[in-house]
Amino acid sequence: MNNEIFDSLAARLQVLEDREAIRSLIASYGPLADSGDAERLAALWQPDGTYAVGAMGEARGREQIAALITGRIHQSLMAQGCAHVLGPVAIALAGDYASARCHSVVFRHTETGFEAFRVSANRWELARGPDGWQVTHRDNAVLDGDAAAQALLNPGVQPAS
Amino acid sequence: MNNEIFDSLAARLQVLEDREAIRSLIASYGPLADSGDAERLAALWQPDGTYAVGAMGEARGREQIAALITGRIHQSLMAQGCAHVLGPVAIALAGDYASARCHSVVFRHTETGFEAFRVSANRWELARGPDGWQVTHRDNAVLDGDAAAQALLNPGVQPAS
Amino acid sequence: MNNEIFDSLAARLQVLEDREAIRSLIASYGPLADSGDAERLAALWQPDGTYAVGAMGEARGREQIAALITGRIHQSLMAQGCAHVLGPVAIALAGDYASARCHSVVFRHTETGFEAFRVSANRWELARGPDGWQVTHRDNAVLDGDAAAQALLNPGVQPAS
Repeated sequence: MNNEIFDSLAARLQVLEDREAIRSLIASYGPLADSGDAERLAALWQPDGTYAVGAMGEARGREQIAALITGRIHQSLMAQGCAHVLGPVAIALAGDYASARCHSVVFRHTETGFEAFRVSANRWELARGPDGWQVTHRDNAVLDGDAAAQALLNPGVQPAS
Repeated sequence: MNNEIFDSLAARLQVLEDREAIRSLIASYGPLADSGDAERLAALWQPDGTYAVGAMGEARGREQIAALITGRIHQSLMAQGCAHVLGPVAIALAGDYASARCHSVVFRHTETGFEAFRVSANRWELARGPDGWQVTHRDNAVLDGDAAAQALLNPGVQPAS
Repeated sequence: MNNEIFDSLAARLQVLEDREAIRSLIASYGPLADSGDAERLAALWQPDGTYAVGAMGEARGREQIAALITGRIHQSLMAQGCAHVLGPVAIALAGDYASARCHSVVFRHTETGFEAFRVSANRWELARGPDGWQVTHRDNAVLDGDAAAQALLNPGVQPAS
């Protein structure tokens, strides 16, 4: 096989590996959140990555992202019983950068059973660095009819940041 | 490497690419629906593709499929706040044709929070054409105990159409 | 192409195929459960595979796993209308063995609509045998605040069994 053919196979393989890595990274978010693993969860982001949670503001850097998990609100949710379940991701790959769109649903255990406590739109921005694919920014906004939340799910709308 | 070995690698790669394309296509349905992008959503189907939504009848062709998104029912849902969240897809690939089975859940925002408004079984039929993989037919039926809805989820049951 | 380069491409392909096979296997669980296909569902496990369902005890071997589907509780759920929807899986692959972590949500149709009846943590243990990847053990536990259920979702916690 000449080099050209090899390069072509390797390039196709690389695309699949990239998509697999990105999907796996995002798939690990919910299990890490609901097992309270703030350190592994924060390490999904680049050291200076950011996470904007709607009206709750933006966490900047791994320390602040980890604090979302170790903080009072999340710990209280975990004590009640909670599940951060993501929907399937639509990934747009562009070399060393990617974005992904998906829903997320937070279920909460209550005295009368489980409720869908928060249903949101998500847009993930990712980049490939020396440590592989990591999140550079995540936007999450409640789907309560807000047009800005809906726009996060659209591939034709560029992120504001 | 001789041609036989190259062909073998390329064929294995092609299967993974096909499965990735089909999963990505289906994963993009929900985000497009909830951002109201009727045009991109309809383009997931072949020009003469169909979408049967239980007792609500069948949309035939992209124009009618787009009308499901621009129509009053879906626009009202979006104004309230909604999320069309799909479950993981079980894909059966056969050359240029494929079928996929999955659940879908429509969450609706109400005055008292979110509710799982509609929980359904889905079977997608897809074909590879000049523009890549597209949907030829989708069946969706509410999982309210109806045996026909349950059968959509089974790989041993052939579609009626 | 020399053998070394071929082996490298083939090994990368194999990893992607393994991850695809595992994800597909797990993705087929819900559709098989909700179409009542006890035989195909049990065949996802190795002949002596096990399935521990929290306080409900452990099913050992395919016959007992199939009985979870043909049994009174599941049949009653299906008659009402139900959906076993899994979240995205975080897969850890190690040669011929793998584990996967994900959420699962059981929706139930009631007189007033659908409810999230059971929201659980899942850890799947899998092995590659002569018939390909199969489940050796699955743990499922309700996320009601129980620390043991939460631990199932964490990659750093080894299974007790």
